[in-house]
Amino acid sequence: MTKSYRVAILGATGAVGTELLELLEQRNFPVSDLKLLASERSVGRTLQFKGENLPIDSVSDRAFENVDLVLASAGSSTSKTWAAVAVEKGAVVVDNSSAFRMNPEIPLVVPEVNPQAAANHKGIIANPNCTTILMAVAVWPLHQVRPVQRIVASTYQSASGAGAKAMAEVKTQASAILEGRSPVAEVLPYPLAFNLFPHNSPLNDLGYCEEEMKMVNETQKIFGTQKIRITATCVRVPVLRAHSEAINLEFEEPFSSDEARVILSSSPGVKLVEDWGSNHFPMPIEATGRDEVLVGRIRQDISHPHGLELWLCGDQIRKGAALNAVQIAELLADKNLLRPATTYVSI
Amino acid sequence: MTKSYRVAILGATGAVGTELLELLEQRNFPVSDLKLLASERSVGRTLQFKGENLPIDSVSDRAFENVDLVLASAGSSTSKTWAAVAVEKGAVVVDNSSAFRMNPEIPLVVPEVNPQAAANHKGIIANPNCTTILMAVAVWPLHQVRPVQRIVASTYQSASGAGAKAMAEVKTQASAILEGRSPVAEVLPYPLAFNLFPHNSPLNDLGYCEEEMKMVNETQKIFGTQKIRITATCVRVPVLRAHSEAINLEFEEPFSSDEARVILSSSPGVKLVEDWGSNHFPMPIEATGRDEVLVGRIRQDISHPHGLELWLCGDQIRKGAALNAVQIAELLADKNLLRPATTYVSI
Repeated sequence: MTKSYRVAILGATGAVGTELLELLEQRNFPVSDLKLLASERSVGRTLQFKGENLPIDSVSDRAFENVDLVLASAGSSTSKTWAAVAVEKGAVVVDNSSAFRMNPEIPLVVPEVNPQAAANHKGIIANPNCTTILMAVAVWPLHQVRPVQRIVASTYQSASGAGAKAMAEVKTQASAILEGRSPVAEVLPYPLAFNLFPHNSPLNDLGYCEEEMKMVNETQKIFGTQKIRITATCVRVPVLRAHSEAINLEFEEPFSSDEARVILSSSPGVKLVEDWGSNHFPMPIEATGRDEVLVGRIRQDISHPHGLELWLCGDQIRKGAALNAVQIAELLADKNLLRPATTYVSI
Repeated sequence: MTKSYRVAILGATGAVGTELLELLEQRNFPVSDLKLLASERSVGRTLQFKGENLPIDSVSDRAFENVDLVLASAGSSTSKTWAAVAVEKGAVVVDNSSAFRMNPEIPLVVPEVNPQAAANHKGIIANPNCTTILMAVAVWPLHQVRPVQRIVASTYQSASGAGAKAMAEVKTQASAILEGRSPVAEVLPYPLAFNLFPHNSPLNDLGYCEEEMKMVNETQKIFGTQKIRITATCVRVPVLRAHSEAINLEFEEPFSSDEARVILSSSPGVKLVEDWGSNHFPMPIEATGRDEVLVGRIRQDISHPHGLELWLCGDQIRKGAALNAVQIAELLADKNLLRPATTYVSI
C-alpha cells in the first residue's frame, strides 16, 4: 500500500470510535489526513493520534469534503443521515451501524469470510453486528469443509455492547451493591451488576429480539446462503468487555471434533484456546484487547450424530466492531477500492 | 401431617445447610428434635431455629442415633462416609451430594416430576443437581404433553453453585477490580467478577464436564427415559445467586409456543415471567429467594419445525438444592415413608 488516504471517523468519541483511532495508529493504516467527527457537545475536545492532538469537529456537509474513507460508528440514525452525503462527496463509508446491513445492494463484510463481497460496493460497506462477526469467524472455516445445517447459539454479552456509558453503569452498580445500596439502572433497563437479562433490543412478533435476528439474518447474508437455519438466545451479562458464545452446530454429515480442531487451529482470525488438563478455555478477560476470536471446548455433540459444540470469546469493541471495520478499510485500500462510487445505492 | 420427626442437618453451616434450616422453619416441617451437624471447626457455634439457639455438633456414629430424617449437604465424600451409618441407625437420608444420584437402587427425585420414585427408597433418596432440577421443573410439563426428543442447554450459573466462599470471593474480586487492583482467585480457578468461564468441574473423555453430564444423566433418570438426547454447555457467571438457563427443545411433533405458555402458566413449581411489551423476562435478581422456577421467553424456534426456545432462572440454593430436599422430606412425611429402611441399598 503506497497510497495514503484522507480519513474521517464519525462518532470518534464513543467506545468504538476511540478504538478505531487506536487501531488506525497501531496497524499503521496509511492516513494522510484525519478528521474526528462527533456530536456538538464533544466539539472543543481533542483526541490523540500519533502523538498529535486532533480537534473534534461537528458533523456537517462540508465535513465530508476531501475525504476518501469514512469510518462511521455513531448509530443508525446518524448513519442514515450522513452516509449518503459522504458518498456523494466522493468518500467510501464503512458503517458500523445496523442501518444498511440488510440492504441487498450493500456488502456486509467479515474480511476472513467474504472479502470478495466488498469488490462491488457502491460507496457503502456495512460492518456486521458484533455477535455475528465473532460467530462467523469461528464457524466459516468449518462450514467450508462441510456445510452447517443449523446453529443454536446462546450468547453472554458484555456491557461494552451497550456502549461506554453501560460499562460505567455496571461498575457504579457493582460499587453500590458492595456497599449495601440499591443499584440504579439508567442506561440499561435493569441492573446488570451481579445480574443478567435477555438482550433488551426490540422484540419481533416471533419473540426474537433484534440482536438475535441480526445473528440469524446477517450470518446468512455473510455466508451467502439462506439454507443455514439459525436460532439464538442473546443475553447481557455483567462482564465489562468481550462477548462469549456457546455455539451448537449441526452439519449435513458427521464432523469429528479432532478435525474441527485442526481446521480452527490455522483459521484466520481464530486463536485456539484449549487446555483440557487445566480446564482452561476462552474467557472474556483473556479476549479483551485481543484481535483474534478465542475458540475452544470443541466437543462432539453427544445429542446429535452430526453435531459439534464450541465455545468462543471475542473482544466486542475490537474484532466485534472497530477492528473488523479497519480490516475492511485495509481490504479496500489493498484492492484499490477506496475511490468514489460511480453507481449509487438506494438507501 | 400429624406426626413429627427427629431431624439432623449434615453440613448445617454451608450455604445450602443454612437454607435448609430456614426452610424447615418457614414451611413448618413437623420437627420434634433438630440436630445440627458440621465439621469439627464449626463446633461451638450456634444457629437459630424457631427463636432458639441450637449448638453445632460434629459428625459421629452416635450423632445419627434417634434420628428419623437426615438432610445431608456436606459434599460427596461426607455423604459416602455417613449416609450408610445414618440408614443403619434407622434414619432416612435425603442427600444433596452427587454421591448416590446415579445409583440405580437410589431414587433421584424432583417432587413436581417423579414423586412416585420416592416410594421405593431403601433409606437414601438423592436430591438432583441444581441446574438439572431447574430444567426438569420447566421441561417436564411440556414433555408430558408431547415427548421431548432433544435438549440443547446453555447455563449461566451463579457463584452460589460453588458455595458461600465463592459468593464472598466474587464480591472481594469485584471490589479489587473497582479499586484498580488485581482480583485474586482462590476458591474458583479464575477470577469470576466481571468475567465468566466454562464450569470448572472435571472433564470426561468427550470434553463434557461433570456439571454437564449431570444435566444429561440425571434428567434422563428423573424423566425415566434414555430416549431424550441432551447436550449442555455449563458456564459460571458473576451473579451471586440464582442460575439461568437457555433451553432449546426439539419435540417429536410441532408444539406451539402458545400452548406451551398455557401449560407452563399452571405447572407446579413454575412461575411464568413474560412481559413482551416491556422486554421483561426472568432475571437472577428476581429469582433469588423465590421458590418457583421463573420461566419465560417461550418462543417457536425459527430453526426447527418442532422446536421451542425457553429461558429460565431459579434460585440455585433454594429450588436448586435446599427447597427440593425439604419438598422430598415433606413428600416422605406425607406418604408415611419416613421410617427405617427394611432392605438396604448397596453403595
